[in-house]
Amino acid sequence: MAEQVKLFKTWSTPFGLRITWALQLKGISYEAIDEDLSNKSALLLQYNPVYKKVPVLVHNGKPISESLVILEYIDETWKQNPILPEDPLERANARFWAKFSDEKLILSVWSAFTKEGKEREEAMDASLKNLKFVEEELKGKKFFGGEKIGLADIVFGWLGNLLPIFEEVSGLKLLDDRFPSLLAWTKELSELPVVKYNWPPHDKMIIKYQALYEKFHPVK
Amino acid sequence: MAEQVKLFKTWSTPFGLRITWALQLKGISYEAIDEDLSNKSALLLQYNPVYKKVPVLVHNGKPISESLVILEYIDETWKQNPILPEDPLERANARFWAKFSDEKLILSVWSAFTKEGKEREEAMDASLKNLKFVEEELKGKKFFGGEKIGLADIVFGWLGNLLPIFEEVSGLKLLDDRFPSLLAWTKELSELPVVKYNWPPHDKMIIKYQALYEKFHPVK
Repeated sequence: MAEQVKLFKTWSTPFGLRITWALQLKGISYEAIDEDLSNKSALLLQYNPVYKKVPVLVHNGKPISESLVILEYIDETWKQNPILPEDPLERANARFWAKFSDEKLILSVWSAFTKEGKEREEAMDASLKNLKFVEEELKGKKFFGGEKIGLADIVFGWLGNLLPIFEEVSGLKLLDDRFPSLLAWTKELSELPVVKYNWPPHDKMIIKYQALYEKFHPVK
Repeated sequence: MAEQVKLFKTWSTPFGLRITWALQLKGISYEAIDEDLSNKSALLLQYNPVYKKVPVLVHNGKPISESLVILEYIDETWKQNPILPEDPLERANARFWAKFSDEKLILSVWSAFTKEGKEREEAMDASLKNLKFVEEELKGKKFFGGEKIGLADIVFGWLGNLLPIFEEVSGLKLLDDRFPSLLAWTKELSELPVVKYNWPPHDKMIIKYQALYEKFHPVK
């Protein structure tokens, strides 16, 4: 039986984009299924009953949810072009920063985008502090793990496309010359073919996030 | 050089207890260092500058933080008595539920313990819904991965000791005969020597969480 790989995502989700990059880095053929989150498919609900969210990877009929879990699955299932290094300490480091992206940095940046007044100021301070940690980690390195794109780069990928959209829509500025290593890293990352040819279209992203921004900040 | 393993924890933390169990399951000798979180040691701050939290595992001078990351590190560094199965799909399943414990269930239970009124009611509903997912997953199984304790069991371990403390202190009841598989599982887990001989003392836990509870619910 030929291997069957399906990826449930949306056209804009940075969490799905991680899986797209990983599958393409591995050279795996797959079918991409773009969900409409306002009208989720019966298959998505069946495959991810706990979170009812994308991305879901379905490999030979078996679903895997949660992007960090899916990335580990992909790396363990298809060994070519490893996403994680071999050394346990380096693997722990990559996982630590991947978690930091999702549990700290994204949350602070999202708060800066959605909150107002004092809460926004606090979220901006937290975002800058969190970015500073990442800046320190990246200092002197091309990618998080060295010379090649790996787990942490894939997970922090949203800094390369989603953050500039947030900045453009909100007028806030986070990623500037206070973070030279991060700026150099976003440039390196954006030039990789697997990344460059998969960014969601900028114009469409602006429309989507402009509408979201107006929802969170209604004109009084 | 002899291998040097140090574990920074507190006497009561369920996140540190995970690491204690994993190291003892592997038969690794280590030095346990109990931190006073109101007066953190310079070493803890040096080893975990990002979160400044326990647990931290220090292996031959190299620190690893975040309990889920540490558990993977332990499993990759010392191969005996694996915590994760070999099959990528089973590994993904264990990781999925470990994440669910920390990102969904703990948060809802903590809210039920700390909030009041409508917020508490909502947290109780969310906790019961989350427990129901775990109940379904455990149905017909001794442990999450089958016959042996593994990653998800270790991570959900707080259901075996901390949750009963929460229930006793708050008078709330979550884990009862609505969840027969979970009840059977907590019994199986609690009978394992590595678990049984490492629970923090019940009386001390009650004193600690009674004080916390009173902080969140001051008498008006």
